[in-house]
Amino acid sequence: MKVTVLYGPGDVRFEERATPAIMKPTDAIVRISAACVCGSDLWSYRGISPVEQPTPMGHEYCGIVEEAGSEVTSVKPGEFVIGSFFASDNTCPNCHAGYQSSCVHREFVGGAQALLLRVPLADGTLVATPHVPSDGLIPSLLTLSDVMGTGWFAADAANVTPETTVAVVGDGAVGLLGVLSAKLMGAGRIIAMSRHESRQKLAAEFGATDIVTERGDQGAARVKDLTNGIGADAVLECVGTQASMTQAIHCARPGGSVGYVGVPHGVELNGEQLFFSHVRLHGGPAPVRRYLPQLIDLVWNGRINPGKVFDLTLPLAEVAEGYRAMDQRRAIKALLRPEGASL
Amino acid sequence: MKVTVLYGPGDVRFEERATPAIMKPTDAIVRISAACVCGSDLWSYRGISPVEQPTPMGHEYCGIVEEAGSEVTSVKPGEFVIGSFFASDNTCPNCHAGYQSSCVHREFVGGAQALLLRVPLADGTLVATPHVPSDGLIPSLLTLSDVMGTGWFAADAANVTPETTVAVVGDGAVGLLGVLSAKLMGAGRIIAMSRHESRQKLAAEFGATDIVTERGDQGAARVKDLTNGIGADAVLECVGTQASMTQAIHCARPGGSVGYVGVPHGVELNGEQLFFSHVRLHGGPAPVRRYLPQLIDLVWNGRINPGKVFDLTLPLAEVAEGYRAMDQRRAIKALLRPEGASL
Repeated sequence: MKVTVLYGPGDVRFEERATPAIMKPTDAIVRISAACVCGSDLWSYRGISPVEQPTPMGHEYCGIVEEAGSEVTSVKPGEFVIGSFFASDNTCPNCHAGYQSSCVHREFVGGAQALLLRVPLADGTLVATPHVPSDGLIPSLLTLSDVMGTGWFAADAANVTPETTVAVVGDGAVGLLGVLSAKLMGAGRIIAMSRHESRQKLAAEFGATDIVTERGDQGAARVKDLTNGIGADAVLECVGTQASMTQAIHCARPGGSVGYVGVPHGVELNGEQLFFSHVRLHGGPAPVRRYLPQLIDLVWNGRINPGKVFDLTLPLAEVAEGYRAMDQRRAIKALLRPEGASL
Repeated sequence: MKVTVLYGPGDVRFEERATPAIMKPTDAIVRISAACVCGSDLWSYRGISPVEQPTPMGHEYCGIVEEAGSEVTSVKPGEFVIGSFFASDNTCPNCHAGYQSSCVHREFVGGAQALLLRVPLADGTLVATPHVPSDGLIPSLLTLSDVMGTGWFAADAANVTPETTVAVVGDGAVGLLGVLSAKLMGAGRIIAMSRHESRQKLAAEFGATDIVTERGDQGAARVKDLTNGIGADAVLECVGTQASMTQAIHCARPGGSVGYVGVPHGVELNGEQLFFSHVRLHGGPAPVRRYLPQLIDLVWNGRINPGKVFDLTLPLAEVAEGYRAMDQRRAIKALLRPEGASL
């Protein structure tokens, strides 16, 4: 079976590996209908996160259950399923609290840029759609595996409620879907921070009411200009650098909230500055599993079309070009279609 | 007029200074009925925060309005008032949002360990009691100026609600009043982290259900033992050191909250660790003004007696002994009584 493997910075190969098989009775094997390249894959592609050994890539997936372990009861072969990048049992105290991505039995699901994928803890991880979807729904359903769930968590963690004024730092797929999430939660005003025309356009389509092109303290000053001089009620941090985190905190009003979902790389927060900012911070790996039923419903009923973030579609065998296009910001997000999978 | 002045580490003097006078029409002069030494005064007393110049000390106060500026309308001479350590206009957007300690016109109120105190922005800062209180109420009313309001904010910032399991890091006056606040908010279980018998006793009196004597990761492990293996829903950080902040974060469950009110000294938070902890953080200087009416009511009606944190009462002239006793942890908190003020 072919799978995408990262050998080192810039070195993506699509190569033959052992076909995944049921290893535990709680596993399922999923035949991938569509996968994609994540902004977080670029950390290692760019050499910012070290690549210790050749690593099977991809953690966003949807597809048809090919085989289910003997203890799996909630999904069965032939069903179309979506899962999170963290497998969870969905029964432990953390799962019950809605933090499935901190499940006490969590396992990272890697190697989804492939034809077949083994998903551990299938009962707690996978959610089936009402029936096998039409091809047109697949890109949007795929986003629920990570980027849409992550944008949603950013807005949820930032306490977005109706009438809230929101600022979004980061115009990648997660930031754009953070805009969409804030809109769905009823935010009165949504300020997207972006200097890329195509992304600004999509942000506006998803519900952004204002665009700020400045960054850093200049960007924060612009957001304050737009918000009674004090800052936004809710800020979504969707990048993960020191600069973006600082920008996000400076954009929030005292008592406002920053929901941060960009995996922090080299970020240090000064306790005293954070203290006097009076900002609320909440973030982490999105508990995608918590949101899947609700978000599947929204996609299924045509209320949202988060799949618009895919502006490049490639055969899975050309995955390396997907990484290149995203690295060079020629594409917002690359959809990968295994050969033979209809779309 | 005599006032307490800190000249350098360990060097507290009670000396003659100019009598405070109305400088702006929004000022009021308050004759101090009681003042006290704050845990945060010890940062500079111990030389951890630099003392650049001789500094009038004290930011916790209550007393009788001696004189009010021409624009002051909400309090008048002869009334007994309590105010916050940050003066606020109580009309700006931050005040309206309940963050008066981030008022756009805020001013720090210093020099309250004295006979008389100038309070700026009197209308927005001072709250009068229904009438002049009996002496017995004064210690509890004094705590509302800072430590009780700060403990309350810690619990509020940590999202304490009925049934919540709470852990409190720090057994100073703020930590102990954090226990009392959590109890009043209906917390089902309150774990006080303390290794000092007299403080454990007061914590239990205020509502602590469990005492943990271990600190650091051992303390966090004990808290996890007591909370289903995952950590507390709400943690109150009432110290402000790297060790206490780390301990607090490690005591919280994923999705749980840390309310931090100890002014951070040398605290740095690693973004990636915070991200994967899934903990909510909120804190800062307590917006005491927001809580004053409610807390005055609770004290006035005898529902709470936060004044129990004062285990040492001294004539104001002996203020230096108050600092020494708190520095050496012989006292939890020292109450200072100006000569002639009845108590």
